Amino acid sequence: MSKAIPSSICVGELATGQALTIPLYEFKGADMSAPSVYIQANVHGAEVQGNAVMYQLMTLLEGYEVLGDIRLAPLANPLGINQKSGEFTLGRFDPITGVNWNREYFDHNIDLTTWYTEHQHLANDALFKAYRATLVESCQARLNQAFGVTTGHRLAVSLQSMAHQADIVLDLHTGPKSCKHLYCPEYDIDAARFFSIPYTLVIPNSFGGAMDEAAFCPWWRLTDVAAKHGREFTVPVSAFTLELASQERIDLADALVDAKGILVYLSYRGVIREKVEPADMARFGCYLKDYKKFHAPKAGLIEYCAAVGQPLKAGLPLVNILRMDLYGSDQALEKVCLPVDCVPILHFASASVHQGTELYKVMTNVFTL
Amino acid sequence: MSKAIPSSICVGELATGQALTIPLYEFKGADMSAPSVYIQANVHGAEVQGNAVMYQLMTLLEGYEVLGDIRLAPLANPLGINQKSGEFTLGRFDPITGVNWNREYFDHNIDLTTWYTEHQHLANDALFKAYRATLVESCQARLNQAFGVTTGHRLAVSLQSMAHQADIVLDLHTGPKSCKHLYCPEYDIDAARFFSIPYTLVIPNSFGGAMDEAAFCPWWRLTDVAAKHGREFTVPVSAFTLELASQERIDLADALVDAKGILVYLSYRGVIREKVEPADMARFGCYLKDYKKFHAPKAGLIEYCAAVGQPLKAGLPLVNILRMDLYGSDQALEKVCLPVDCVPILHFASASVHQGTELYKVMTNVFTL
Amino acid sequence: MSKAIPSSICVGELATGQALTIPLYEFKGADMSAPSVYIQANVHGAEVQGNAVMYQLMTLLEGYEVLGDIRLAPLANPLGINQKSGEFTLGRFDPITGVNWNREYFDHNIDLTTWYTEHQHLANDALFKAYRATLVESCQARLNQAFGVTTGHRLAVSLQSMAHQADIVLDLHTGPKSCKHLYCPEYDIDAARFFSIPYTLVIPNSFGGAMDEAAFCPWWRLTDVAAKHGREFTVPVSAFTLELASQERIDLADALVDAKGILVYLSYRGVIREKVEPADMARFGCYLKDYKKFHAPKAGLIEYCAAVGQPLKAGLPLVNILRMDLYGSDQALEKVCLPVDCVPILHFASASVHQGTELYKVMTNVFTL
Amino acid sequence: MSKAIPSSICVGELATGQALTIPLYEFKGADMSAPSVYIQANVHGAEVQGNAVMYQLMTLLEGYEVLGDIRLAPLANPLGINQKSGEFTLGRFDPITGVNWNREYFDHNIDLTTWYTEHQHLANDALFKAYRATLVESCQARLNQAFGVTTGHRLAVSLQSMAHQADIVLDLHTGPKSCKHLYCPEYDIDAARFFSIPYTLVIPNSFGGAMDEAAFCPWWRLTDVAAKHGREFTVPVSAFTLELASQERIDLADALVDAKGILVYLSYRGVIREKVEPADMARFGCYLKDYKKFHAPKAGLIEYCAAVGQPLKAGLPLVNILRMDLYGSDQALEKVCLPVDCVPILHFASASVHQGTELYKVMTNVFTL
Repeated sequence: MSKAIPSSICVGELATGQALTIPLYEFKGADMSAPSVYIQANVHGAEVQGNAVMYQLMTLLEGYEVLGDIRLAPLANPLGINQKSGEFTLGRFDPITGVNWNREYFDHNIDLTTWYTEHQHLANDALFKAYRATLVESCQARLNQAFGVTTGHRLAVSLQSMAHQADIVLDLHTGPKSCKHLYCPEYDIDAARFFSIPYTLVIPNSFGGAMDEAAFCPWWRLTDVAAKHGREFTVPVSAFTLELASQERIDLADALVDAKGILVYLSYRGVIREKVEPADMARFGCYLKDYKKFHAPKAGLIEYCAAVGQPLKAGLPLVNILRMDLYGSDQALEKVCLPVDCVPILHFASASVHQGTELYKVMTNVFTL
Repeated sequence: MSKAIPSSICVGELATGQALTIPLYEFKGADMSAPSVYIQANVHGAEVQGNAVMYQLMTLLEGYEVLGDIRLAPLANPLGINQKSGEFTLGRFDPITGVNWNREYFDHNIDLTTWYTEHQHLANDALFKAYRATLVESCQARLNQAFGVTTGHRLAVSLQSMAHQADIVLDLHTGPKSCKHLYCPEYDIDAARFFSIPYTLVIPNSFGGAMDEAAFCPWWRLTDVAAKHGREFTVPVSAFTLELASQERIDLADALVDAKGILVYLSYRGVIREKVEPADMARFGCYLKDYKKFHAPKAGLIEYCAAVGQPLKAGLPLVNILRMDLYGSDQALEKVCLPVDCVPILHFASASVHQGTELYKVMTNVFTL
Repeated sequence: MSKAIPSSICVGELATGQALTIPLYEFKGADMSAPSVYIQANVHGAEVQGNAVMYQLMTLLEGYEVLGDIRLAPLANPLGINQKSGEFTLGRFDPITGVNWNREYFDHNIDLTTWYTEHQHLANDALFKAYRATLVESCQARLNQAFGVTTGHRLAVSLQSMAHQADIVLDLHTGPKSCKHLYCPEYDIDAARFFSIPYTLVIPNSFGGAMDEAAFCPWWRLTDVAAKHGREFTVPVSAFTLELASQERIDLADALVDAKGILVYLSYRGVIREKVEPADMARFGCYLKDYKKFHAPKAGLIEYCAAVGQPLKAGLPLVNILRMDLYGSDQALEKVCLPVDCVPILHFASASVHQGTELYKVMTNVFTL
Repeated sequence: MSKAIPSSICVGELATGQALTIPLYEFKGADMSAPSVYIQANVHGAEVQGNAVMYQLMTLLEGYEVLGDIRLAPLANPLGINQKSGEFTLGRFDPITGVNWNREYFDHNIDLTTWYTEHQHLANDALFKAYRATLVESCQARLNQAFGVTTGHRLAVSLQSMAHQADIVLDLHTGPKSCKHLYCPEYDIDAARFFSIPYTLVIPNSFGGAMDEAAFCPWWRLTDVAAKHGREFTVPVSAFTLELASQERIDLADALVDAKGILVYLSYRGVIREKVEPADMARFGCYLKDYKKFHAPKAGLIEYCAAVGQPLKAGLPLVNILRMDLYGSDQALEKVCLPVDCVPILHFASASVHQGTELYKVMTNVFTL
């Protein structure tokens, strides 16, 4: 019934002069009151599976009645995706500066007390529209500032400008070797019941540089300031990061599972007319403060023993560390365990590590959603 | 019964002055007439599993009666192993020059006709001993030449010098995403029945820069020259490259399987006193000329459909290529097949590729060994 | 008269098991009341000139009477120094995570109001000694925390622990293509008259992750808290970053110039008994807020026209941008100027840039010191 | 009088689907009997100065009467040029495979004896035209082979196909830190008198994978076969590599000097109608066998003492090696000299080196041209 309209956006220029462009697809919604959606994938160059999910989602959407506008930006970091180093994609940070591509979003310095005072006479819809316009203008001003902006900031703010125009923002990532998990702001925890994702990280409402935060923080702050002025409304924008298993992997069948999960959420929010029921599966949560990084206590070759997405009891082996320079001693092969029960969510991609390498991220104090 | 004696060798020096050292382990054989063995692992930095195989092999050997000297060099390329780029090990080539670490071995320029003429009066054992000494001296002369040698050549020739001192040379590698396979020179094809490796590449007796060739070529040439002078003997040195599945992977249980396979070969050759029977498994061969590289006909995101080590009929899908910039056209998702029956042996490690990337290596015209 | 005593410190372990060690040299001072000094060089891998300055400084110090303890840590980032990529040293950030090696220092979370209340009965010397002990212990606790720390943080906190034991901290860096300049905290601006460095950036007393800030911030905060409690003392620790021209350059003659400048400062502070007079040269300052980054407004090949360290009038050419894809148009060769007078301090190292690359850093509103 | 006509060629496709294109410019010659020319620049990504030389050359050519067709391909390796690693361009080798971009050209396997026998009835012009067509077709066949070709080979053969259509081929490179020098085949040594380049390497007529060899070798072989059949003609194609000083450098004034040198050669060959006289300068030659690579005998920090392009007497310092881990010993600072007189032509770009790094290339047995 619906059809994706293709276009593209230019987000930079390579040394040879070639434009850095991102393909865009848009479904025009039939109902202007329905929420609008922005979805991007592959901001980290090796995290390609989100593109496959978009492919499946667009194919699905063609069979539904789309009410809200949906804009999709696959391959959202052409420089990062095309940057190879050996047989892998070196796409996590700018190869020149080292800055993580997902920490380059803009923290608007809007004086919200002043802004709110000037706009509080507006009804909710008009207020939100005015604020949205302010955020988009702020992005444009940022891109045009006198001494220029960095390559990564230009990319990020260009994407952010599109995200600010939507009510729902989904940023599709993956872990290194990872099970599926969702970053969900605390105020929006109910949303976690809809996606086909077993583990949810509940994050605070603060800005750390990532897209989801860049999308919802300004709105959470507005809600907060309004509340202080005695006006209550729910945070008008929802933004999530979906971690769709491992990087350097395209799996179209699994992509369909996640596309359906997104469709369920869009159905729940009224972006499509049809009702789609969530997958029947167990879902678990963990607060960000209980999400722990475990660093290699010593260097060596690593056998990853703990499967991601599977609960691990305290004292059971997380990794074996093999030290061939120490064969014959009791340090040649050492088992490493954690002192607490946990669910390993992701682990490092390489099997040999320097001391201090982040080996695993694990959820502790996991609860049922 | 046996015990590994540890030592180490210095193969270079890093910019900060730190020595590049490789740990060595030696089992002293009880019978001087038994063949001697040299095994190295991890010359390509990401190909770590050979170390685990060595760990298991050394542990096994402690329970056997070792007749021939066995020297093991794990972690045989410290610079390559420690060279990370993003979450992976950039260990396939020298990061400064791009030269493949496994193409740096030395092709001795020995005038064999002259050499043979001078030494043909010797009996086989003395002849071989003299030739071995010549090869080792040639390595030393190479390392000491006036204007120096490159970092990679120093490493390679240092390793080669140890290899030349053995009758059996095993170089433990892995593919990127790969099933187990063996590089075996044509004259030594019987050996392929002993290892726990299903697929064998039968290679010609020519020098391409790799360790196995560096070890057996000089001896094959000697055999050839002697034959031209009317003296027949079998090639006195055996050298193989074992590709032990995928890189960036340590699996101790699987390492035990391959350690046992090596033990079987050592048993067959009389390096240990005990008889060890080969694993009961199907083994297949393919001539190097029938080993085909398939390059990406276009760029895009890759779903690797064909499993490594599983026969694939002509016309069945090898990969799907997803092009999110072309959604809506019939080029958005294309299935790629090969026109011939094959066994995919290995595929590329990344799921997004430029046009021309080597996607798969496949065996064609596979035969039963 | 004096002699450097060598030792070393271990700051990590590479995948192969090799220890990451840093050489240390110590001059033992004759007068316990003289200030102690910590100097490190080459935390960014390509910034090697500081080592040459140390070489010259140590050689000079052997001819002076050293009163305060002086500890020197050359080659202070072995992993970064040894990390090559092509013909250059990729030493600015951790190749795995992208994190800048000089943004990994630790911001102690000491509750200073409580700490001061508990220690305010102490006389200045005892107070400072107690605080120093607290800082060093805090570093040790950090290194030993349960789930480990990253490779870069281990390095940084290990260095920081040594820095906290000194009254004077000098961190020797270079720019990419750069003239000499000094980072100097506002409260210590008088120090800028002693070094042989023409340009000084006056920085605020806040923590941004660098060594100089890590060294002086805790002491500036203590001074501040004490002042709020009515007790006045000058900030007891001085810390500076010296940017000694360009990276990938060893120049022993120029290193002697900077070694003498450091000697002058040490003389002024009473670390050596002899008086050494500062070089007679013009010295200029600029506030950090007036230090501007200029990003490439478009991609292309860059001719760097403006010499570093030379004042540049508004409207004079900073760079020419050559675009060979646009030959024949008026965009083939474009001159780029700044709208303000400035002193270019450093520029990018490569001659081809993506849009947004930081081309130049320039001082504006420069004043005479 | 003349005007460059722009076009472009597609030489591949990046993972995101973006075409790899190279801009082309063509001057149409007025006289079909005049030799045609192909010039390319920047096949190694960091070697940008050739583009500036092309810019100046095209600007000059607009003022001359062009008789032969001249095609120019600047920015001839978009993937290599855009591949940054830290602040430098990692453009010397394919970042995935490590293969040097300038060793990927195609060595046609033409059975020349057969080919010549079939075509020997043709007059020279027709013979050359037929051979040229064979070479170009061979390139096209190569690009279209069933299992595909690598990314680098596609680029190289695409460039080579253009080169084969010309009588004169110039490949513009630079060294790392280098003086200007020319690679010139022995049979064409007279040409070296025309360029504004002081040092010429006289190379044999054999194929090593580089563009100049790929262009002239097939013609040299044809000449050779014809001679064996009793027919004499001079090698119909000239091909040179010009090394235009250092990489990562754009200098428009110096580019004009080299553009004029090229113009002189084109004038001499009758590609332009006007006579242009060569620069009055000393020119020297050296046989490739006397061009020596000097490798770091030990690791350390390097002060490059010998200036490139300046004769250096035996025993005078080439480099100083600083070892800060050995301060206090006589190995802390060591001077390294060569045992022969030489002219240093280029040196390594980084100031810290592993043992074995190629420090300098020097000409020995230099003679006046």
